[in-house]
Amino acid sequence: MMRPAAAAAAAAAAAVRTARGALNGLQHRAYSQATPGPRHLLSIGDLTPNEFTTLVRNAAARKQVVKEGQPPVWLTTGLSNKTVAMMFSKRSTRTRVSTEAAVTLLGGHPMFLGRDDIQLGVSLLNPVNESLYDTSVVISSMTSCMVARVGPHSDVANLAEHSTVPVINALSDDFHPLQIIADFLTIHETFPSSSGPGLGLNGLKVAWIGDSNNVLFDLATACVKMGVDISVASPKGYGIPDPMRHVITSAANGVDSPGKLSETTVPEEAIRDADILVTDTWISMGQEDEKRKRLDAFAGYQITNELAKRGGAKEGWKFMHCLPRHPEEVADEVFYSPRSLVFPEAENRLWAAVAALEGFVVNKGNI
Amino acid sequence: MMRPAAAAAAAAAAAVRTARGALNGLQHRAYSQATPGPRHLLSIGDLTPNEFTTLVRNAAARKQVVKEGQPPVWLTTGLSNKTVAMMFSKRSTRTRVSTEAAVTLLGGHPMFLGRDDIQLGVSLLNPVNESLYDTSVVISSMTSCMVARVGPHSDVANLAEHSTVPVINALSDDFHPLQIIADFLTIHETFPSSSGPGLGLNGLKVAWIGDSNNVLFDLATACVKMGVDISVASPKGYGIPDPMRHVITSAANGVDSPGKLSETTVPEEAIRDADILVTDTWISMGQEDEKRKRLDAFAGYQITNELAKRGGAKEGWKFMHCLPRHPEEVADEVFYSPRSLVFPEAENRLWAAVAALEGFVVNKGNI
Amino acid sequence: MMRPAAAAAAAAAAAVRTARGALNGLQHRAYSQATPGPRHLLSIGDLTPNEFTTLVRNAAARKQVVKEGQPPVWLTTGLSNKTVAMMFSKRSTRTRVSTEAAVTLLGGHPMFLGRDDIQLGVSLLNPVNESLYDTSVVISSMTSCMVARVGPHSDVANLAEHSTVPVINALSDDFHPLQIIADFLTIHETFPSSSGPGLGLNGLKVAWIGDSNNVLFDLATACVKMGVDISVASPKGYGIPDPMRHVITSAANGVDSPGKLSETTVPEEAIRDADILVTDTWISMGQEDEKRKRLDAFAGYQITNELAKRGGAKEGWKFMHCLPRHPEEVADEVFYSPRSLVFPEAENRLWAAVAALEGFVVNKGNI
Repeated sequence: MMRPAAAAAAAAAAAVRTARGALNGLQHRAYSQATPGPRHLLSIGDLTPNEFTTLVRNAAARKQVVKEGQPPVWLTTGLSNKTVAMMFSKRSTRTRVSTEAAVTLLGGHPMFLGRDDIQLGVSLLNPVNESLYDTSVVISSMTSCMVARVGPHSDVANLAEHSTVPVINALSDDFHPLQIIADFLTIHETFPSSSGPGLGLNGLKVAWIGDSNNVLFDLATACVKMGVDISVASPKGYGIPDPMRHVITSAANGVDSPGKLSETTVPEEAIRDADILVTDTWISMGQEDEKRKRLDAFAGYQITNELAKRGGAKEGWKFMHCLPRHPEEVADEVFYSPRSLVFPEAENRLWAAVAALEGFVVNKGNI
Repeated sequence: MMRPAAAAAAAAAAAVRTARGALNGLQHRAYSQATPGPRHLLSIGDLTPNEFTTLVRNAAARKQVVKEGQPPVWLTTGLSNKTVAMMFSKRSTRTRVSTEAAVTLLGGHPMFLGRDDIQLGVSLLNPVNESLYDTSVVISSMTSCMVARVGPHSDVANLAEHSTVPVINALSDDFHPLQIIADFLTIHETFPSSSGPGLGLNGLKVAWIGDSNNVLFDLATACVKMGVDISVASPKGYGIPDPMRHVITSAANGVDSPGKLSETTVPEEAIRDADILVTDTWISMGQEDEKRKRLDAFAGYQITNELAKRGGAKEGWKFMHCLPRHPEEVADEVFYSPRSLVFPEAENRLWAAVAALEGFVVNKGNI
Repeated sequence: MMRPAAAAAAAAAAAVRTARGALNGLQHRAYSQATPGPRHLLSIGDLTPNEFTTLVRNAAARKQVVKEGQPPVWLTTGLSNKTVAMMFSKRSTRTRVSTEAAVTLLGGHPMFLGRDDIQLGVSLLNPVNESLYDTSVVISSMTSCMVARVGPHSDVANLAEHSTVPVINALSDDFHPLQIIADFLTIHETFPSSSGPGLGLNGLKVAWIGDSNNVLFDLATACVKMGVDISVASPKGYGIPDPMRHVITSAANGVDSPGKLSETTVPEEAIRDADILVTDTWISMGQEDEKRKRLDAFAGYQITNELAKRGGAKEGWKFMHCLPRHPEEVADEVFYSPRSLVFPEAENRLWAAVAALEGFVVNKGNI
């Protein structure tokens, strides 16, 4: 997914970084972090099935105890006097609000740094990218966590490489783990558990109808780990890239009865016997100029009651969407219907962030 | 006050919203809020005279106890671990600082979302305004309160309509309730109480010399409720619009001895026997292009010692202004004189916000 | 350093301000502040050698106790329920992050106000600058401290003049006291103490190789107070301005064995026998257009191992830089070497801010 010139530049940068790391390793030790280095959450692939299950169950438990009005002190003081840096190179309302509210619930201070406050990312003109290295070392020496919402996944990966505190990926071009923890919390709340492993969701079927993107990659990975089948319908040319298919299918390693990934270009095929229909925007930030072309390619992909019926979804099928939503990808009759889980799903972003911060920051990655 | 096309669009939007509300009512219940729905503070008209009195007295009491240095724990933890969303579509220094400081005093986290962070408002091209509905439902599901500083009052009203947590209007084109609580706290601190009802301010007279705007509408409403007479001098064409006059005079319903509203185009008439002279800017944000025309219309309206004398204000008259101030509406000799209450009035924005958050969020509208 | 027209305007403004102060003195008393007025930290010159020593030692002690994981409650609640206004008219990542984290560590709420949120500064068209006066009075009446990062030093000085709460200079065109507290904490951690006064650093030598700027002025002042010699090498035309030399050398008044200031245009001369080599960017914000000229003037000033050797630095010489760094002023071989203290120095910004907030806000200037 990287062009040769960029790859060469990245390799050169990595070599310089390694040299620097060796030079700095002995002299600099940040206060927030013990050796051998913090554990980061960059994608669902970073979690074992057990850990993913624990995060979802913790999210459910924290949601319940807070709503009952008596959260325990260990929860509400987990981040007391601690600052969580939120480094957002792109705007994202739900991600911002859920993260700030989650840090606050744990007693900490969310420090929002937007595009105008901080610059992330590798410049091809300056592939060594000193500023990202320096930024990561410096900010992690003063804070307890960095939550990053970036463009290229390499930005958050590089941040993590040099950070002395946990880095949580709050959305990159490739992955969106907090969304997927929220999605499985929503599924967990909606569908009765079987006695299977993990969340007891074995045998459930998710149909993804739309573009293959960062949300899908982590969603499919989680499905595989949790024994949930996932069928992806995307127009020709918009399917899962090979390296990502490898990431997803590799998630089956060591799982007793992993979920199965299937792919098609026909929405109705994906929908057959599905319990949950999911989609996302077809035109992400930065793709506005190919809007016309994409609207053509995705003709017939709008989720409607008629499409669900024609495809043969299960009778009680539900609808999910990570928002923001555009009418072209889902009709109002579905989006604002009792089948729609979108608003509980959005709220669950809060509880997912609480569980992730608890696991990676308060409990230092011991999940 | 709405043009026909906009009104039709708004009616269509309302119909869609009602349908949506019905569809979503059963399935979605946000965590912060019990049925039947939160109580909001959108204007002074939302408060009974007793409630308004209580908010002002509470503001005074919290101010005292904090200045004495020993605020009670129930006060300083009222919003612990809770996030208050501050949604500001226009800049406003005093409103921002007072709200952030008030939330902090109550132990909560103020989350500031500016114009670049969040988009509010109805687009005529998209009258259904899905984003405002979605925004309100989503943000209210993750926070404990939304404090909104908007343009059209319908923005904050729509936010409240769909919110599962209390919405506080921090300034709209029509109303400014937090300013008026601060103003009456200032009056309460400055003028001795009579044995009358409410704040014991019966018989006092306020003279508003200037444009009729959002501050005036809520100030006049409060005066009527508190038995304070208010006389408004505005140039021809800048007087109180009929629907707003109705709002103000309706505030007398059920009040034993309501304050009287009188209107004139002659500043000296309004000033006669006034205890308090109030004005505000003549050129609000967005009106810069008609500046010349307005400066002409308001000739003779600058508050000076000479004008006060000529008009026959009470000997001990005081001056109020909600800031920011421009020299054309009040002379330095008044603004920076012992008659001026403007700086205590500004500080009282903090205590008004504390009382409002306590009443509407901590105590869930039981004031 | 002020042109006659500006000086006349400033004098006029001062006269008006004095009149205003007299008028307002009796009627307005902000809640956060007792008479006779708060103590501010505008430059290192505001501190006695004992006070500077105490701030550095406190910074070291707080760093240790927090890293050990059991900070005392008096530390972590020093600013509970209090808001610290951060008024930044220029961007500054390290200053922002360290200040937010420090306020949070002390239990308070850092309220960040950027260029778009608040306007500071004197306009020559409006020398009376009402807005800065009003802003200072109003914001200080609602908060517990103002931390200002400004352009002209007069902005932060004027803010302090009218504020009822402590003002901390977080960087002006003339001074940078928080950086220098961090720098001396870093030196204190790196070099063994002698039995001398203050921090026991007498006899140490610092070489500043580069432009003479705000960081240098406060660094040199601190060196003089702490008995550390400082030798400054700057190209002709880029040396210390006379008024600043006076500020620096006056710091020796009342000090038993003050550090000595020497100046040269030859880097090697300054470096001779130096323990610490320091530099900073040659091209500050706003100077980009004279970049070419400056790069020519500073030819030969890049800090390299070869330059240090040629100049005869002490064998164990260390390197410091307040960041952000550009390659022209220091070579990678130095910047990313074990000689480099830049990352601990950056982290120490946090502990310097903690000590300053503790001294000036929590303890009201009793250091």
